[in-house]
Parts: sequence; C-alpha cells; structure tokens
Amino acid sequence: MIASASSIQKVTGFNIAAPKGFRAGGVHCGIKHKKLDLGLVVSDLPASAAAVYTTNQIQAAPLFVTKESISKEQKLQALIVNSGNANACTGAQGLADAYEMRSLIAQKLSISEHMAAVASTGVIGELLPMDAVRTGIRTVEAYASLKSSIDFSQSILTTDTVMKNTTYRMALDDKEITISGTAKGSGMIHPNMATMLGFITTDANVEPAALQGALKYAVDRTFNCITVDGDTSTNDMVLILANGCAGNSQLQPQHKEWSTFIEALLLVCGDLGKMIAKDGEGATKLIEAVVTGTEDDEGARKIAKTIVGSPLVKTAVFGCDANWGRVMAAVGYSGVPFNIGSLSICIGPVCVVKDGMPADFSEQDVIDYLKHHEIKIEVNAGNGSGTGTAWGCDLTYDYVQINASYRT
Amino acid sequence: MIASASSIQKVTGFNIAAPKGFRAGGVHCGIKHKKLDLGLVVSDLPASAAAVYTTNQIQAAPLFVTKESISKEQKLQALIVNSGNANACTGAQGLADAYEMRSLIAQKLSISEHMAAVASTGVIGELLPMDAVRTGIRTVEAYASLKSSIDFSQSILTTDTVMKNTTYRMALDDKEITISGTAKGSGMIHPNMATMLGFITTDANVEPAALQGALKYAVDRTFNCITVDGDTSTNDMVLILANGCAGNSQLQPQHKEWSTFIEALLLVCGDLGKMIAKDGEGATKLIEAVVTGTEDDEGARKIAKTIVGSPLVKTAVFGCDANWGRVMAAVGYSGVPFNIGSLSICIGPVCVVKDGMPADFSEQDVIDYLKHHEIKIEVNAGNGSGTGTAWGCDLTYDYVQINASYRT
Repeated sequence: MIASASSIQKVTGFNIAAPKGFRAGGVHCGIKHKKLDLGLVVSDLPASAAAVYTTNQIQAAPLFVTKESISKEQKLQALIVNSGNANACTGAQGLADAYEMRSLIAQKLSISEHMAAVASTGVIGELLPMDAVRTGIRTVEAYASLKSSIDFSQSILTTDTVMKNTTYRMALDDKEITISGTAKGSGMIHPNMATMLGFITTDANVEPAALQGALKYAVDRTFNCITVDGDTSTNDMVLILANGCAGNSQLQPQHKEWSTFIEALLLVCGDLGKMIAKDGEGATKLIEAVVTGTEDDEGARKIAKTIVGSPLVKTAVFGCDANWGRVMAAVGYSGVPFNIGSLSICIGPVCVVKDGMPADFSEQDVIDYLKHHEIKIEVNAGNGSGTGTAWGCDLTYDYVQINASYRT
Repeated sequence: MIASASSIQKVTGFNIAAPKGFRAGGVHCGIKHKKLDLGLVVSDLPASAAAVYTTNQIQAAPLFVTKESISKEQKLQALIVNSGNANACTGAQGLADAYEMRSLIAQKLSISEHMAAVASTGVIGELLPMDAVRTGIRTVEAYASLKSSIDFSQSILTTDTVMKNTTYRMALDDKEITISGTAKGSGMIHPNMATMLGFITTDANVEPAALQGALKYAVDRTFNCITVDGDTSTNDMVLILANGCAGNSQLQPQHKEWSTFIEALLLVCGDLGKMIAKDGEGATKLIEAVVTGTEDDEGARKIAKTIVGSPLVKTAVFGCDANWGRVMAAVGYSGVPFNIGSLSICIGPVCVVKDGMPADFSEQDVIDYLKHHEIKIEVNAGNGSGTGTAWGCDLTYDYVQINASYRT
C-alpha cells in the first residue's frame, strides 16, 4: 500500500520544525510531576490547516475550540498542546479553559485567536490546573532547532515510552518540499483514532480543501488501521499545517505531482501509526496484518484490523505460540465474506493454512519467527482483489500493569 | 431484566440430569492428558430440541452435524460432547469424524442417527484422536445421579476453573417442572456465543418452534451479553432439550403460563452466563453493567456490552482504579446515541457522573467498593426507557499468562 517513491527521501534533522518556516518548543509547566507537559508549534506564515477527530460521541473541549478555529479560514499559525490532563468531561469550565489557552497563545504571538489550535491528552474528568497552564504558555518558546523540536515531541507524551517522529523530503515543482510528523499514543488506541495525537507540518503550498481530503485519505489507511486495545478516546486529532514556504505552485488534485504529495503524506502517517502500534502499552512486538483477496479494500482492512485487535492473537504472539487457529477464527468473525476453501494464512515466511486447511509446516519454524520484534501475518481471503493492512501489538503482563494503576 | 418469580425456585441436586427422564455421564478417553474429556446426555424419550450457534463464518464440523440432526424432526434423544479438541478447520476428515461420533452414539443407544447431537471444544485445526473417541463412546454411560451429572459438567470444560450448573423448579399446569443447565467457557467469550457450550434440559412439554424462539430470546439477553475478550469462537452452541416427562399440556406462546417458562429459561441462561463471565480466563471479578435510559433495549445492551468489553475498564476494575472516565469513554464510543447532559454513572453505591459531569464523590469510597468480587456499573443515558445488562470480568496478568501459553 505504502511504497516509497524514489523521489521521496527519509531525512533526519529538526523533526516537526524541519519544514521551512516552522518552529517548535516544549516546557514543563506543572501539569505532570516532572516531565515536559506543554508544547507549541508556530508557523511563520498562516498555513493551510486540516484535521480529523475522534469518532467518540464524547469529545473533549479542545476539539471544539480547534474545529472552530479551522472553520473560520482553514488556516492556522499556532498549535498549543498539553499532556497530563485531557480536559474532557469538564463541562463549561473545561470549554472556558480551552478557549483561554487559545486566547493566551494568540496574544503571545500577536495573531488572531482563530489562527491557533488547542489539543490536550491525559486523564479524563479533571479540570486543567490553569495557573500552571498560564505559566507554561508564558514561558514556552518555539525555535527551528532539533532540541526544541524534540522538546515538543516529548511534551505531548503520556504513557508513551518513546517519541514518534518522522520526516520526508521530495522535489515538487523543482522546489524542495519537506513534510514532518510527530505523534503520541500508546493506550486507548483503536480505530478510529484513540488517545492519539498526530501533528504534521509541511512547507508545501496546498489548497485547504484538498489538504483536508488528502489527510482523511491518509489517516483512513494508517492511523485508523492501528489498534492497541480497542478503546476509543475522547481527545484524538490529527492536524496538518501546510505553510507554503517551499514556494511551489499550489497543490490540489489536478496538480501533476499531487500523487507524490499524497505518497509522502502516507509515508509520514504510516511511520507514525506503526510507531504508535509498536509502542502500545506494554508491547514487546509490532504485529502487521496484510490482507489480500477480499472483494474490496475496505473489507481487507476490516479483516486486518480484526486480526491485530484479537486479544487471543495478541497473547499468542507475545507467548510465541504458533496458534494459527486464532488468526483463522478472527478472520471468521470479522464480518467480511470470504471463501474458506481458498483461504491461506502465512505467519512470516511460514504458510500455516492453505485452501482453508492446516498446511504441512514446521511448528518450530513459526515459534522461531515469533521471537522477532516485528511480526507479519498475511491472509489471502481468496475472494477478490481488495488489499489492506493494519498494525497492532502484542498483549502482555505490562499492559495489565500499566492500566490497572494508571492514576495511582 | 431477570426477576425471580416467586413460583420459580432454585434447587440443587442432579444438575443436568435433574429433570425427569434425563441421564448424564462423562469419562476420560484420552483426548486430554488426565481430565474427563467425553460427556453424554440421554433423554429417555425423544425431546423437543432447539439450538443457537456461533455467528463466526468458520464453523466447526460438529455444528453442521447437530444442525442436520435437529433439522429432521426438531427432536433429539442424545448429546455427545468432547473437550480438548474443537474439530474445527479440519476439512472433510473432521466432518467425517463428527458424523462417526454421531453414528457411534446412536448405535450404542439404539436410536436413529438424527436423534443425536454432537459438540466439541478445544484446540482448533487438529484432527480428533478417533481411537480415543471411539473408546470413550464405548465406555461412557449415563445415569440419573448427582455424581454422573457432575462427570458430564466436568467433561466439557477446557480452561474453566469451575463447573457451571444451575437448576430451577416451578409448578406449571399443576405439574412440577424442572429446568437445568450446564455450561463451559472462559476464554474467547464474546457476543455472540464464543467458545461457549451451554446445554439445557427440561422435562416440560414444549412445542419445538416455540422452544427455538424462547431459546433465542433468552440467549440474546444472557449468553450474548457476556464478554471475556472480544474473540468469537468457531464452536459455540446452546442446546435445549425438552422431553415432556413432566406431563404438562404443551407449552407455546398462547399457553397462559408461557411467561413462567420463559422466566425460568432466562434464570437458567442468566446464571450460566454470569458464571462464565466470572470464570473468565484469569478473572478475579465479575463486572455487571446495567444500562437504562436509551431509546430501546438493544441500545442499552450495546452500551452495556461496550463497557464490560473495554480493556481499560477491565484493567481499572482489576486494579481498583476509580477511573470512571474510561466508563464514560466507552459509553461514548458504543455507537448508541445518548444525551451527554443527562448522563449519569454509578460505580456500586457511588454516583461518579451526574448530568454528564464529574459528581462530588469520595474516590476512596469507589476504591473500597472495587475491592469486592462482584462489581456493578450503572449508566443512565437519559434518552429514553430502554434497559439492558451485560456481564464481563476484569483483565488480569493471568489472562495474559493463560493465553500466551495455551498450547504449550
């Protein structure tokens, strides 16, 4: 699905502040005990903005504020994010707090309020400690440096064990264009977009409506194909800012290099999605399910998500148990029609099911393969030309430990 | 939902063989290492039979055979069950083996083949050790004794830690009627009916089509409202046999005491469902979610199932974490419309959310309550008069351990 075009190169450097005209930073303001908990991204110019949000009916206050900001002009120039407190289920006071965050950062940067977006992640149902937040907004500064972009990436983490950053560069219209993303999320991760924040910056010039379409397309095939535990959060959003500092002619679907931009966006979102799945709470292994042979792509993705979402598959991968019957059962209850007589399943290089029946294979080969840290499960449903991929992680003792004592 | 009518009394005694004209037994034949692994239930007279099956597209061989048997006359006189091997994903040989099991028990009992049902539970994708099964069918005998009914209940277990039995007695048509059930299941438990077997016997005289309707009604409100891990198995069935030995006039929906029979059936299925949820793999606590205030009962059951299915709720209950935000998030992603402004949530006696906002409560009170072994979570969605209940269990280290090494 995500093939790397030769003209798109992965690069390292300033992360979220790598595209021209972006700066970032992060501070500790006191929402958490010690770790960085407030982050800022600034674009020197107003950037085309697009976002997708959680499908949970209960949505946190900052989502309302960000939606309102973007709805005005489809442009943003700043993003303020806190971790440690989700500002969800906090009623009128929570909404007032999110508006105040937006107002304070707009004043600080001398921009209109609707040019700023707000995001939060953390515990649900507690009011933000606004004194700490106010201090944080006063002190946080954004720079185009590697250190400050790392500060931002760290300031948005909760139970994550690692930062998630990725950056690609490509030539478009003979201009050098950079696209970079950073994300957080490791629990309550499930389609669609659960306790997950993803922020993408690019110096490409992109028409706002086209940007929204491109983001939705990419998120459906990446962030929405990962699952850690099947829970869906109240706070998720993926936001993209495109400030045009690269100087290319405006991208939209009729542009001859539109597909290159889509490709790069898929690479960024795919990298971040896999990093989130791999860093799932307590996870020791990334599980990738690649499904082919369904009637359409949507069916393939649905089967793939069912496999990586199955607690029994997840525990079997953790325990290096060659229990392919659990994969087969998951395919069966996915709700997607398939032809059992032509179903095949491979775990890594080992074909375990052929024509719907156990294949002749060495169980030890499967056990040995399952000791790797990246596990691939391939299913051919034998029923068409649809394809889809999903990512998840194993289910371990540590997942239980982390979530049995999250707040204590 | 399940209120105990005063005329229906819970009784102890012969379990599955308690209704008049039923016998049961179980033996160890060698499918498992040591434990009982083959069980038999016999009715002296042909009994009205009804069954519901897994919704998994992949269904094990014995399900085909049992469906075929019941389809002939909607009557059965015998049931043969093995544990330790699911006879699923075993192709033509597996189907032949299931037919042979039916044939052997029919010969032994001198009944028509279609008067026997077959069920299996255990590992997927391995052929039954038919020599052991043949020996078992030769040696197993059914008696109307407590010991032999216990043998049957034990012979159907896999990772279960306890037997699941329940029996009720009532007067109907001035006849004493007994209804008894036994079940197995502790992993891969999910609506609808995952790795779960339920067998119910009654000496009531019930019209077969009415019996099928009654079973479906009861299962939808009990067995299909329990979840352990969200996985759905290939082998599940709930089967009821009604042999008429009580001598009552035939029950059907127009019978004036039909509702008493339904009530008793709900009690039996409800007891078994709760026992399965409580014995979920690695579980230390039963979680009961009671939802009111939805537009209809189906919506209430859906919210209730979402709550007891949430890994984050399950781990919070395990860890005695008063994390009501996770309950709220689960309500939000259940897909059922509700009115957030009138949403209330109670954990046991403590109201934690009122009018969609955190209530003023003592966190310590919730923590103390969560130390109990039966946890009740009540949600009022504030949107109608629908009600529904679902049952699940906490998610623990032992769940991971059991499933990371099921076959080793």
